[in-house]
Parts: sequence; C-alpha cells; structure tokens
Amino acid sequence: MALMTGEQYIESIRKIKMEIYMFGKKVENPVDDPILRPSLNSVRMTYDLAQMPEYQDLMTAISPYTGKRVNRFTHIHQSTEDLMNKVKMQRLCGQKTAACFQRCVGMDAFNAVFSTTYECDKAHGTNYHENFRKFMTYCQDNDLTVDGAMTDTKGDRSLAPHAQADPDLFLHVVERRPDGVVVRGAKAHQTGILNSHEVIVMPTQSMGPDDKDYAISFAVPLDTKGLYMIIGRQSCDTRKREGSEMDVGNSEFGGVEALTIFDNVFVPNDRIFLNGETEFAGMLVERFAGYHRQSYGGCKVGVGDVLIGAAAVAADYNGANKASHVKDKLIEMTHLNETLFCCGIACSAMGQPTESGNYLIDLLLANVCKQNVTRFPYEIVRLAEDIAGGLMVTAPSEADFRDPKLGPVIDKYLRGVASVTTENRLRILRLIENLSLGTAAVGYRTESMHGAGSPQAQRIMISRQGNLAHKKELAKAIAHIKE
Amino acid sequence: MALMTGEQYIESIRKIKMEIYMFGKKVENPVDDPILRPSLNSVRMTYDLAQMPEYQDLMTAISPYTGKRVNRFTHIHQSTEDLMNKVKMQRLCGQKTAACFQRCVGMDAFNAVFSTTYECDKAHGTNYHENFRKFMTYCQDNDLTVDGAMTDTKGDRSLAPHAQADPDLFLHVVERRPDGVVVRGAKAHQTGILNSHEVIVMPTQSMGPDDKDYAISFAVPLDTKGLYMIIGRQSCDTRKREGSEMDVGNSEFGGVEALTIFDNVFVPNDRIFLNGETEFAGMLVERFAGYHRQSYGGCKVGVGDVLIGAAAVAADYNGANKASHVKDKLIEMTHLNETLFCCGIACSAMGQPTESGNYLIDLLLANVCKQNVTRFPYEIVRLAEDIAGGLMVTAPSEADFRDPKLGPVIDKYLRGVASVTTENRLRILRLIENLSLGTAAVGYRTESMHGAGSPQAQRIMISRQGNLAHKKELAKAIAHIKE
Amino acid sequence: MALMTGEQYIESIRKIKMEIYMFGKKVENPVDDPILRPSLNSVRMTYDLAQMPEYQDLMTAISPYTGKRVNRFTHIHQSTEDLMNKVKMQRLCGQKTAACFQRCVGMDAFNAVFSTTYECDKAHGTNYHENFRKFMTYCQDNDLTVDGAMTDTKGDRSLAPHAQADPDLFLHVVERRPDGVVVRGAKAHQTGILNSHEVIVMPTQSMGPDDKDYAISFAVPLDTKGLYMIIGRQSCDTRKREGSEMDVGNSEFGGVEALTIFDNVFVPNDRIFLNGETEFAGMLVERFAGYHRQSYGGCKVGVGDVLIGAAAVAADYNGANKASHVKDKLIEMTHLNETLFCCGIACSAMGQPTESGNYLIDLLLANVCKQNVTRFPYEIVRLAEDIAGGLMVTAPSEADFRDPKLGPVIDKYLRGVASVTTENRLRILRLIENLSLGTAAVGYRTESMHGAGSPQAQRIMISRQGNLAHKKELAKAIAHIKE
Amino acid sequence: MALMTGEQYIESIRKIKMEIYMFGKKVENPVDDPILRPSLNSVRMTYDLAQMPEYQDLMTAISPYTGKRVNRFTHIHQSTEDLMNKVKMQRLCGQKTAACFQRCVGMDAFNAVFSTTYECDKAHGTNYHENFRKFMTYCQDNDLTVDGAMTDTKGDRSLAPHAQADPDLFLHVVERRPDGVVVRGAKAHQTGILNSHEVIVMPTQSMGPDDKDYAISFAVPLDTKGLYMIIGRQSCDTRKREGSEMDVGNSEFGGVEALTIFDNVFVPNDRIFLNGETEFAGMLVERFAGYHRQSYGGCKVGVGDVLIGAAAVAADYNGANKASHVKDKLIEMTHLNETLFCCGIACSAMGQPTESGNYLIDLLLANVCKQNVTRFPYEIVRLAEDIAGGLMVTAPSEADFRDPKLGPVIDKYLRGVASVTTENRLRILRLIENLSLGTAAVGYRTESMHGAGSPQAQRIMISRQGNLAHKKELAKAIAHIKE
Repeated sequence: MALMTGEQYIESIRKIKMEIYMFGKKVENPVDDPILRPSLNSVRMTYDLAQMPEYQDLMTAISPYTGKRVNRFTHIHQSTEDLMNKVKMQRLCGQKTAACFQRCVGMDAFNAVFSTTYECDKAHGTNYHENFRKFMTYCQDNDLTVDGAMTDTKGDRSLAPHAQADPDLFLHVVERRPDGVVVRGAKAHQTGILNSHEVIVMPTQSMGPDDKDYAISFAVPLDTKGLYMIIGRQSCDTRKREGSEMDVGNSEFGGVEALTIFDNVFVPNDRIFLNGETEFAGMLVERFAGYHRQSYGGCKVGVGDVLIGAAAVAADYNGANKASHVKDKLIEMTHLNETLFCCGIACSAMGQPTESGNYLIDLLLANVCKQNVTRFPYEIVRLAEDIAGGLMVTAPSEADFRDPKLGPVIDKYLRGVASVTTENRLRILRLIENLSLGTAAVGYRTESMHGAGSPQAQRIMISRQGNLAHKKELAKAIAHIKE
Repeated sequence: MALMTGEQYIESIRKIKMEIYMFGKKVENPVDDPILRPSLNSVRMTYDLAQMPEYQDLMTAISPYTGKRVNRFTHIHQSTEDLMNKVKMQRLCGQKTAACFQRCVGMDAFNAVFSTTYECDKAHGTNYHENFRKFMTYCQDNDLTVDGAMTDTKGDRSLAPHAQADPDLFLHVVERRPDGVVVRGAKAHQTGILNSHEVIVMPTQSMGPDDKDYAISFAVPLDTKGLYMIIGRQSCDTRKREGSEMDVGNSEFGGVEALTIFDNVFVPNDRIFLNGETEFAGMLVERFAGYHRQSYGGCKVGVGDVLIGAAAVAADYNGANKASHVKDKLIEMTHLNETLFCCGIACSAMGQPTESGNYLIDLLLANVCKQNVTRFPYEIVRLAEDIAGGLMVTAPSEADFRDPKLGPVIDKYLRGVASVTTENRLRILRLIENLSLGTAAVGYRTESMHGAGSPQAQRIMISRQGNLAHKKELAKAIAHIKE
Repeated sequence: MALMTGEQYIESIRKIKMEIYMFGKKVENPVDDPILRPSLNSVRMTYDLAQMPEYQDLMTAISPYTGKRVNRFTHIHQSTEDLMNKVKMQRLCGQKTAACFQRCVGMDAFNAVFSTTYECDKAHGTNYHENFRKFMTYCQDNDLTVDGAMTDTKGDRSLAPHAQADPDLFLHVVERRPDGVVVRGAKAHQTGILNSHEVIVMPTQSMGPDDKDYAISFAVPLDTKGLYMIIGRQSCDTRKREGSEMDVGNSEFGGVEALTIFDNVFVPNDRIFLNGETEFAGMLVERFAGYHRQSYGGCKVGVGDVLIGAAAVAADYNGANKASHVKDKLIEMTHLNETLFCCGIACSAMGQPTESGNYLIDLLLANVCKQNVTRFPYEIVRLAEDIAGGLMVTAPSEADFRDPKLGPVIDKYLRGVASVTTENRLRILRLIENLSLGTAAVGYRTESMHGAGSPQAQRIMISRQGNLAHKKELAKAIAHIKE
Repeated sequence: MALMTGEQYIESIRKIKMEIYMFGKKVENPVDDPILRPSLNSVRMTYDLAQMPEYQDLMTAISPYTGKRVNRFTHIHQSTEDLMNKVKMQRLCGQKTAACFQRCVGMDAFNAVFSTTYECDKAHGTNYHENFRKFMTYCQDNDLTVDGAMTDTKGDRSLAPHAQADPDLFLHVVERRPDGVVVRGAKAHQTGILNSHEVIVMPTQSMGPDDKDYAISFAVPLDTKGLYMIIGRQSCDTRKREGSEMDVGNSEFGGVEALTIFDNVFVPNDRIFLNGETEFAGMLVERFAGYHRQSYGGCKVGVGDVLIGAAAVAADYNGANKASHVKDKLIEMTHLNETLFCCGIACSAMGQPTESGNYLIDLLLANVCKQNVTRFPYEIVRLAEDIAGGLMVTAPSEADFRDPKLGPVIDKYLRGVASVTTENRLRILRLIENLSLGTAAVGYRTESMHGAGSPQAQRIMISRQGNLAHKKELAKAIAHIKE
C-alpha cells in the first residue's frame, strides 16, 4: 500500500470508533469537532508533506525491513544521517503547523522498543522483538500513526508503583490468560492519541522486583474495548468553538491532550513487548526518553521559527523594526532557537548503533538538548511579548472588529504603520498570543518543560552520563595530584 | 463622608451609566457580567481592606488637604514613609486578589499631576494646580476610584503625534471653547477604567512645539458623553461564562482592559490640568511613569506571593515537597520576588520632595524596579510550571469531574498524595494555570512587561539617570588618568 | 579625642607590633610593604573622607553612648536612616578606592555583638553587654579600626566543631582561668585584620550543646601574644612589587587577606562577650551575617560604579562609544549595579529595633541582597571584559612601553581614537584587568561570592525567613481550597 | 618525513631565531623561559598525542594532496566527519592541557585560505590557490605549526583601514616589487605565534575599494627579517618565575599572546594568497572566523572538563560533595559545557563542501557556537568559584607552606577532610584559581569572549544568516495573512 494522502489519513481516523469525552459529554464526531480538528490537521501535515517531492528525502525513508518507502515517522533509524534527518523533519513540521504534530512519540517508541526487545530476548529467551517487528511492519505497510503512551498518573511521587495506596495509579497487569493479559490503569497527557490508529504502551520508570506486573509494554488499536479518553482543558480551548478565525491566532493547527483510561483492556500475546522483565523497564524508558528529548531539538525549533517570524512581522507592523533593541532581540531569539537545534543535531550526529542495529542518539547530549528546551522557549516567548507590545492581550474580539459601529473605530485606532491593515496587525498579534498564552502555549511552553520528562529527570541523566570521575582524573593530572 | 464599604462601592459604580462593548455587543449590566465582575471585585478589595482595623495604617492616611482620613489610593504622598506604605499596601492587595486591583493608576496620576501642575503654574501663570486640588479633594471626600489614562494607540511608532497619517492616533484638542475644550482620540489598555468613577487623561510622551494640541490633561466622569469602551480579549476570558468555579482558577478576582474612545468629549475649564504647555508633557509622563514603575514593586510582588504559595501547595499535593530541587526552586522564586520588593522599597526610601511638597520616588531606582519586573515574573512563572507538573495543562474540565461516570475515574487517577482530595489538587493547578497562561497571566506577565512602559523605555531612563559621566570620573581618578 | 586624620591612622597602625608572615618570611615593616600598603590606604580612606565637610553626614554620627561625634564605622545604628546612611557611606568608599576598605566588618560585628550580648545577659544573667559597651566606647573615643573575625577554617564541612579530627579546626577555649580564658584556633580570610587596632572574634555557626567551648566571643588588640597572620596570595599580588604604577591598574588601593592564628591567646574576662552560651552563637552569627550581607549592597555597588565608569572610558578610547550594543551593555551594567543598591537600601529601610535598642536590618532582604551580590558582579565583569576588548589581557608591560625601542612602536600601534594617548588607554584597560582578573577581582568577584557567607547560606536563610506557610495560605484562599 | 615527536618539535622551534621582547628586554632563549615554556608545552601536546595509537584517528588524517598521514592540525577537511573529528580532537587537547594549545588558528587559516584562493583565482585568474597548496603541502610534509594572524590593532573602531590617522594601524602593502611585496603593520593578540614555524597573515575585516593595499594575505617563516614580537602581560604571569609548582596551578601548560610587528617585511610572490582583491577579504574573514568559532566548541569544552573536574575534586576535599546544591552545580556546569560541545558538533555535522572541495562548517551554527562561548565559560567559572570556597584566593603561598614554622600550621588549619593532604587541597584550589583569575583565565574567559571575534561580530552574522524573511513567511502563512 502506498503512503496515505492527508485526506486518506483523515478518513482512516474517522473510521475508528473511539470513545472520547470532553466537558462531561461523549464526543460523537471527533474528526469534525472544532476543538479537536486542528490537532488532527497537525498530524495530517505529516502525511501531506510526505507527498511533496521537495520534502521526500526528509519525510520518507526506505525501510530495510520491507524494502518499501515509508513515512519517516514509522522508520527505524539506520544511521546518524537518519537521526539528523529526523530532527530536520521535525523542524519542518513545526514550521508548517506552529503546533505539536504528535506523531514523534510513536516514532520514538518504535526505535526504543525495537532495540530493547532485542536485548531482552537475548537475556530472557522471550520473543518480543519478533512481536514488535510484526507490528512495526504492519504499521509501515499501512502508513499508520501510532501513539506512544508512557506517563502514568503516578499518585504520590515519593512511592514506588506497587506501594501506592491505589494499585492502579500505575498501569499494570491484572489478569494473565493463555492468550494474553488484561491491564488496568491510565496514561496521562496523551497528546495525539485520538489522532492515532494504534497506541504503544510502555512503563513509565525504572522498576524493582516488586513491580513485576507494572513492567508491561504492548500495542493495541484505538478502538479496543475498555480504552477511552477524557480530553484535557487547554488555555483558550473554547475560543475554537466561537467561529472566529482571527481570534484563535492559528485556526488550522493545534494539539490536544487526553487522559487515557485502560479499563481492563485485553492484550493478545503477539502484541506484547515486555511482560515482567523489570530490569528492562529502565532501559526502555531511558531510550524512549532519549529519543524524545532529541525530538524537542527539532519540533520546538520549528515552532520557534514561526514565533520569531511573528515577532518580526509585529515589529514591522508597529513601525519598530528599525529600533536597534528590537533587532537585537530578534537576534537573541534566533540565537537561542538555533542553540536548541544544535543540541538536536549534535546528539544525532554522535549517535551509535545498538545491538539490534538501529541507531541510538548520544544520551548525554539528548538530555542536554531537552534541558535547554525547558528554558529557551520561555525566554523566546518573553522576548516575543516584549516586541509585540501590550496590544497582544488587550485587543478587542473579532466580533467587535466585524461590528458596523465598532469595527471602523477599531480599524482607525489600532492601525500601526499606515500601509498595513489593522486586520493583519491583529492577526499577527493573535498568533503571538496563541503561542505565548493560548492553546499553543500549552505545547510550546508547558510541554517543553514536562514533555519527555521534567527538567530534573534530565539533570539526573546528565549527572549519570557526564562521567565526573573522568573529569576529576583530568584535573588531578593537570594539578599534579597524587593520592 | 466616610470611606465607602466594598458594597457601597459596588453600588456606586452600578449607578454610573457607562457605555461598554464586548464581543460586538453593548454590555447592559457590566457590574453583574461574569467576565467583568471579577475585575470589579479586585477594586472592591481596596475598599474592604480599608475598613479593617489591622490594615488601617497601610490602607488609609490623613489627608493634609482635608484633614480627614482617606483611602491611601487617593492620598498625596507626604514622606518617604508614605511612599513605602504605598508599596506595602500594593503587596497586600496583590496577595488578597492575585490580580491587578487597578486603583494604583489613579493614585500615581494624582501624585504626578499634583507636582507637575504646581511647576507649570509657576512657569506659565496657569491655575491648573488649583483645578487639580479641587478635583482631588472631591475624590478624597467621596472616596472615589479614579483611572489614569495615558497610553495613546500611537500608530506608527517612528512618527511624532502631529505627524501621524491620522491626527487622532494621539488624543488631542479638536475644538477650543470659552467654557472648555473638546477632545478626540483613544487610550489603549485601560485596566480598571470601567470600575472607576472618574478618569484622569494625560499625554503619553514628551512633545515638541508642533504637538501643542496633544499636550492636554484633564479629568472627566465615566458617564461623560462621547466616552465609551471596548473590552479587550484576554486569554481564557470566556471560561468565566461557563459557570465553573474550579476551571477559572481564581473565580473571585481578575482584571480587564478596555480600549477607550473619546469621541469629541467636552472638558470644562476647571477640569483641565495641562493645555498646550508642551514642555511639561515630558515631566508629567516621567513622573507618572516613575510612580507607576514603583507600583509594580508592590503589586506584582503580592501576586508573586500567591503564585509561590500555589507552587508550594502543588508540591505538597504531588508528594514532591521533600525533593531538594523543588525546595531550591521555591527559594529561587522567593529570592526573585523579594528582589522586586527591594526595588519598590528602595526607590521609595530614596524619595525626595518636589517643589509642590509631595514626595517623588527616586527615578533611577524606580526604573530599575520596573526593568526587573519585565524579567523576574517570567522566571517565577517558569519555575511554577516546573513544580506544578504537566497536569496543569492537561487536566479534564470540572464538567468531566462532576460527571457521574467520569468523575470517579478522574478522582481515582488524578489523585496525588492519598490524603489530599483530587478536587483540591485540581484547584491549585488551575490557579497556577490562571497565573501562567490564563486571564491573570495577562496581568502578571504581559502587563509586567508593558505596563508603565515597555522595557526599552526604562533602559532609556536608566541611561539618562545613571550619571555615567560621574562614573567615568571615578574610574579616571583611580587609574590616575589625566586628560 | 578627635577623629583621626588618615595620616594619624597610618602612624597609629605603624606603632602596633604585629606578627605577619608572607612568602615564608616575617614582614618587618608591613606599613611600607608594597603589597600590603594599598590595603592600608583603603582603610585610610575611611578616615580621610570623615574629615571632609561634604561627607560628614555620611561618614560620621553622634554616638548616643558618648555624646561625641564618631566615625560611622564605629557607630551603633539608631534608626533606619542610620542603616541607609551606612550603605551610602559604603558605596562612597567603594567609589573612592575601587577596593575593599575593610572597616565594615568591625562595624557589623559591633552592632551584632551589641544586641546579642544584651539578650544573652537577659537570659543568663551574664554581663557581656557591659563588657562590650566598655570596649565599644573605647574604640569610639579613640577612633579605632576593628576587625571582626568569624570564619573558622572548618575542616570537614560535614562535621560539627567538636567532631572534627583536630579539635582546633574551630577556634575554642582550651583553658579557663580566674582572670580569663585561653583560646586556640585560626580564622581564615581575614581581610583587613592587619590594618586594625583590635579584633573581635565570633563563632562561625550555630552550635549544639557539645560545642560549648566553641561558643566564644571576645576582643583583643592586634599585638596580643600568640596572635599572628599569614598573608594569602592574590592574583597578580607580586605585580605590586615591580614598581610599575600602570601595570597594577589601581596603584593606590587594594585589600589583603590573612590566615590568622590564635596560638593559645589569653583573653581577660572584661573582653569576653560570649562564653559557652551555645544557643546565642546562632543569633550572633545570623545578625553579623545579616549586617554584613547588607554591607555588600553598598561597598560592591561603589566598586561597580568604578568598573562601569572604566568600561565607558574604554569604549570612548576605543572609538566604540556610539555603538548601540555598547550603550546597551553600559545600561545593563548600571541596571544590575543599582539593583544591588536597591537591596542594600531596602533591607535598611525595613529595619527594626532590637531589644537592646539598636537597629537590625530586615534579615530576609539582607540575604536577598547578598544572594544577588553572588551573581551580578560576575555579569558586570563579563560585560566590562566584552566592552574593553582583548587588549586588556594582551597589552605589553609598562617596561616595554617605557623602552626606547619598543615604546614608540607600542604607542603607535595600540592607539585607539587619535586624540587619546596610548598611555591613558592602557591605564584604563589595566584598571579593568585589575577588577576582572587581578588583585581587585579577589574582592569584587570571589569575596562577593563567599564573603559574609557562601550563596547556599543565604538560600537557607531565605527559605527560613520567606514564610512559605503564609504564602500557601494566600494561595489556598484564592483557590477556595478547604482542607 | 614522519610526524614529529613532541621533543623534535621543541628542538625545531629552538632552531628558529625569533625576535621576542618581554618586560622591556629581548628574550634570548624563549624555549626555556619559565613564562613562555608552558605555552610551548601546550603546542607540544598536539605532537605527543599524535604519536599515541589510541588517538591516531582523532589526531591525524590522510592528506588527499600528499597521500601521507598528517597531523590533523595541518589537514584540509574532506567531510563532515573530518569537521567533527576536529572538534573532538580539540576537546581532547583542551583536556590534556587546560590551556590554549594554539595550533587551531593555523588549521582554520589553512581551510579558509584553501577555499577562498580557489574562488578568487576563478574570478580573477590569479594563482593564489596553487601558491597556497604548495605552502600547505610543505607544512604537511614537515609537520609544521602555523600561526594565523588576523586581528589588526585597528585604532579608531569607527574608521575604515584607509581612513585611520596612521595608515599602519591596519597591516598593508607599502611597496610592490617584481619579486614580491613589502608590508607594514601589526597583528595583535597573537597566541602561539612564538611557538610556530610559519605565520599566515590575513586581513581583519571586509574591505571597500579604497582599502586595496590592506587586502593582503601571505605566509612567512617566523625568523623573517622585520618581524618581531612583544609579549603581552597576563594575570599572574610572573608567578611562573618564582619556581613554585604549586602556586601556578598548572605548572606545565599555558598560553601566551604577543603583539606582532611587521616592520617592512618582504613577502615573495609565491607566498602571496591575496593581494588587492578587496571583495575576497570579507569571504576570507568570514570563513576563517567561522572555522575558528567552531573551534571554540571543542577546545574550551576540553578546558571546561578540567575545571568541572577540579571543582568536583575540591568538593570532595572540602567534605561537601554530598550536598545537593553542590551536586546540582556540577550538573549545571556539565550541562553548559556539553551545550557548547553540541554547538561545535552541530555546525560540523551540518557542514557543506565549498567549490574547492574542502568542507565548510554551517556558518549560522558556528556563530551560535561562539556566541554561547562568550557566556557559558563565565558561568562555569562562577560556579567553580562557588564550589571551591574562598580559600581559593586567600591561601598562603607555597613558600609559607614549605616554611618549617608556618608549614605545619598551614597543614593543620587548612586541612579539609582528614584523609586528604592539605597539599593536595591547595593544589586543586590553585588550579581553579589559575582558570578563574590567573594565566589560564586569560584563555578560558577573555579569549572565549574576544577570540575569533567579539560577541557583537557573531550577532551580526546570526542576523545575516538567520533568514528572518523566511521566518516571517512562515508566520504569515500560519496567521493567514495576505498582504
């Protein structure tokens, strides 16, 4: 089967009968819901771009497992060039959507599960790798979007999975049957799960021997019985219901998160990728998180490009683009954004093959990448708000602007440079608002903070990977210290 | 007349027939509108606190002009202690509302107009100071809330007022009559104007001889013919219409901005405080801005206290309050917040009397204060988002939480430490969302950036007030440089 | 006795037979030693300025205990105005020396010991306060410079005083006699001790019941038997021996630190201010540190003024003073420097009387002050190095410049703007070098970091004083959380 | 000829009769001078490491022009892998010397001149590329160290080369002869020139038609008539003359800068690489600067590794290594250092071939790399000073430590954890001092600031390379703005 067009993708999702709730009600037609649709459109962009010849090298690859051209989001990385192309592809998608396009998490889960199952099988004689390859080639052949679900709701952060007051606070096996297992629990913050055909579930942290039932990884389709989603509220979410294109800032694209419940979901044996081998839970988490921390060095950079551009347009429209401090702030924003890109590229270029043959990013640098992502987008946003001016948060609504009495008054008084329409000025300010405070700020700011692990998680990895002992030896050698 | 109670204040505002528009419609009953009411409640707090004995010293003062006890928001500062009490009062109000309580702008306009009219009269033989004192004592006697309107819409930032394509882009006199003047123009970003009894209008920048008609200052009541307001959109504004107390984060307090149109408004002679004396426009702006930059060292610190507290509560509820990195982040937030307070206090303690007898803050330090306010709240927000965790932007709505099917599921899975209800956990996260991304972020972030002048305006003042020539002399003396 | 002139001060120090070692040798004439003399000159400045009518209000005060005019460095603070004048005086002295003028530590010890002895006496019936007042009035009457010695060498940071491998690693009482005590130990980093007439010794941290012998405070003159000093190395220290005025950058002023040994020093009873009352050790440390953390908001600001001025002169001489980025960096340096001043002023203005009647700074804000001092001078230095250009660290020596062959070549090639002599250009660069990397960097950078306690010490105090519980209550009230 | 051993290199330099001045005197034996020798040792390390099998891949390459194995410092980059290996080699050399090893500048000049001469020849029919290749293969065959001299002394920064008051303030051709040209001028800040066999001279900035005589590039040996050097002063330079190994911190390695005078130096025709083709001056500068800005993403990272290690050792010796804030600071230092490495690697991995066939780094990312280098080492130093403690700048000299009376006292009182000798504690603190304030701080701090161009130079390039127009288009597309 050929790669899907964007339109085919939309229709393929429409066919899946998902159980989705929002504002206390079941969403009967999620594909056409005004709050949910922009999120679907973002994923669609990963299909549309793959159809365009100028992006073929970035957006697609030849799968060595099927010999066929696949969307890179379903690809298993074969080289450091693949790893770098991944980052470049993500930057491109970020530039085209100014939002989270959601498909990365599946790609990162693919590559983490691929190598971890290989090593687990070697240690335990299990056959998870074969299970996974079967699933993977099915997804490649059908050009599917796959969600990767890792984050459990976790309850009390100071307690291990098995020690929680409620055993379900981490997803776990509640029944073992000859043909598979039954699981219960919930995965939080699932961006894009409702735009996916399948979901790969992974454990959320390293585990000890007592957490055996929690060391479970598998894949199921989204219409699996017992699986349902409750959509999370985003800042300004309901503005999308108002019918105003201007006020939402980015009317076409977005991202949405769902709390996903696994209420006694059955998983057949051939869809299981880990089942009780607790010592591999940590490896799976570390590798998935590593890949996903790399990802942020691409996608957020693309969104940053849009925000920098928007700030520059706002400066043009305000008549402030010649001011040296404005030019300097745009340089600073660019500098910070490209520093993130450097980190994304560097952890890719320093990648190494795993035992299974696919390529893993440099874990230290990938964590450094994400750590910077928890900082720089916030400063880029701050500078964008500085350049935009206060009007960004005090401009009247489109309804006012379209009103016969108020419209001309707004048009008159909120004009910047005379040659630019007030409408265009308001449009660019709304886009900046969207990325700074609105629905997209959830992705550009808070997700930059917590996605792929909160800042402290990276610091722990930097500490572990930083080889301080070697640095101490270097210093002692220079200082001629003998102990 | 005694100081009004909060309730009396509300009723006094209800009686004023203002012309207010929002979402393309006239607001018939602004006092009870769910979007506008929280903003009114914030101003009300300045009345309620003034009634409480424990806050009397901070919230009130004896007016030397009337001999009576007045709300400090209508007071003319008589000492550096008054200036410091102003800042402490603002911190208190910020702590009690977690929002902009709006009444500062009038207080700052009072003190700036007081001394500028005095000096203008001395130079020009005008009688603006007497006009102003009459207006001021009227406001003190009746315990009125007064808005200060400065920011013109400005059009092309690279052009002077008289050189704009549309002469109305700065508010100006369009007709001079024996009994007064007629003005036209608009003032942007008017926080709290719709909760005020009166508005003082001031010019927005220094002016040259060609800008004579733009050098105009005066006061009018809010129901003046030709004056109307268009409410600006805030992030998450319409959430307040949904009827959910939980989802809005801060259901009681808020702030709202309005684009205010002066459509051929008549101003009687005895309400005029400046009229063509262009060289005093700069002084008025500089002093008002100076006082208002001081203000931010109080009000935003109070809001910061709430946000720091909210992050600490979230850490408690997440079971993360023992983690050393969490404790350290709370220290950092406190450190930054108190640094802002230091700046607010210092520019007050270093204040000096003006020729008219009232006290002016140290202008250099007031600008330093505000410059820090354009930075630290952003970092405090970033750290709060870090501590809160991603659930802050992905938690389901209250409607889901109250749903018989979904509610128990959410309650089960989104519980943090077992001893705390999920509802309380969600409440504190919604408050952090409100301050980071929602309606209150408009005040705590963007207003911190642009209120009382954008960052570059402070840098220009720091350059002007920093006395670099003196510093060069110090350096040359130490280096034994003779030129 | 009247206040001493600078010259009288120098001669009074010359008369004291101190035991000082440097580079493995006894220094026979410290007053005229080229490395030590600039440090003496800095203290001298506190005497010279006190003689000048224009600085009398800042530099002197009327002692309420003697009724006579005293140097403010020996004054007990009677009001918040006194506390603010202290900070302003320190800024002035920093401006005039571009170095540490060393006399603050005695002033801060005076005020901390004054109130602590009062409260200790009240609790224990001791008579330390009377002892101290006798000593204090003696110092006031004779206009003495007093060092305050707090920092023990501490050994293993993870162990309490009594638990160290060597009991002497904290100074302690080794013998108790009817007429006094004998102490042993060492105090590190003693800036200015060798320019002092007397030294007040204080414990270095809070202590438990087992540390009784370590809870000791007293004063002795500098020629006391058993007390001797070993001078610490500073960056570029020996440049002062070369006889080049240009190369040292600041040829007149400096600061020097000494490791001070108390080798069985006898202390008479009437010079003892604490002796075993362990629970007051913490109070004494906290108050001294608080005062000293306030001090840094004055002295370092004065040094910062010189460095900012020097950078501005360098920009003039380089022909770069019109560049917008240079102007902006000078603004940033000023902004940071004045932020420190704000903190110094604010903790003073918020001061409160102690039980003994003298004024104590606001401890929270004093710690915030010092915490900023551990950061901003580093950034100011970085910006100064940026503006100065690389020549600051690659310019030839004065010996080259005075050489008949090389001098003209250097003069030709290292000229900046044609109207400024190369000599003056080199002089200003050497001053920047001195403050960034040389002897003065020890004071402006490392002492800013560790003087009056390392950064973490302030963070602990900020945590303790920040009243997080109150902030949590504020947040819960806003979020309508009931527990 | 085979690659030289370190010892052979030293002897080869000894044979070159250079004219060097320091402290007003001619240095007769620079190779054995205590101030200059550590600098030579650093270069020697590039020879020693190339002899070690474990580093062969990093330190050497096969020259495609000679077919022989050459030291990578003389190599022309053939691929992005070569570019990345360059950065890794530089990190290694930084780790082994904790200093500037100086040989990069020649490598970067090689690669910049290689491609620029190729393109210049194509445009002008000159034969500079052949000249250069002859010179280059000579250097490769003889394993020479080559300095690259770019920075003119520049005089008034606001004037072009030909417009300076003194025409020699930029190096230029003063005579044109049939067999070559005669040049006059000076190059500032020449690190490592006195440890080089040859020097490549390049213009220092873009030039206009009037600057024809200034657009000159060539190579000459270091003993060329008319070429002489005046050594610049470094912080703590003369400590190296004292004979103390401990006090210098890093007794073996260092770096030294020289003002280099070209006093009517003759250059034969076949050593000329640019001569009046002004429009290629900018390309040469841009490419050299680009390569050299990449370099800092390697060498400074290596030095940073040593400093991080030293801070960690100091924490161990102080007994503070378990404190969470110390661990966190070490993580932060590592994070910042690895971010620099990411930038060095990324601009390499994104490199592209030039027309001449060698590889050029990505110019945008190389400038981003260097811009970060002007910031992060300063913060790393600040954190190192924080961890080290004040003793770093107050510890007595080695002379005191070796003194029979003082030594035991110092040993007793300056001991940290009991199991570590005081000597080792002092050694590690001296190394931190050396990198923070001493001779190595010149390289790690000031050179990080100004080497390869001051920060503003990178900002201009970031602005030029950042493609803001493209970003604006992206933003307009998302905001549906049609103009």
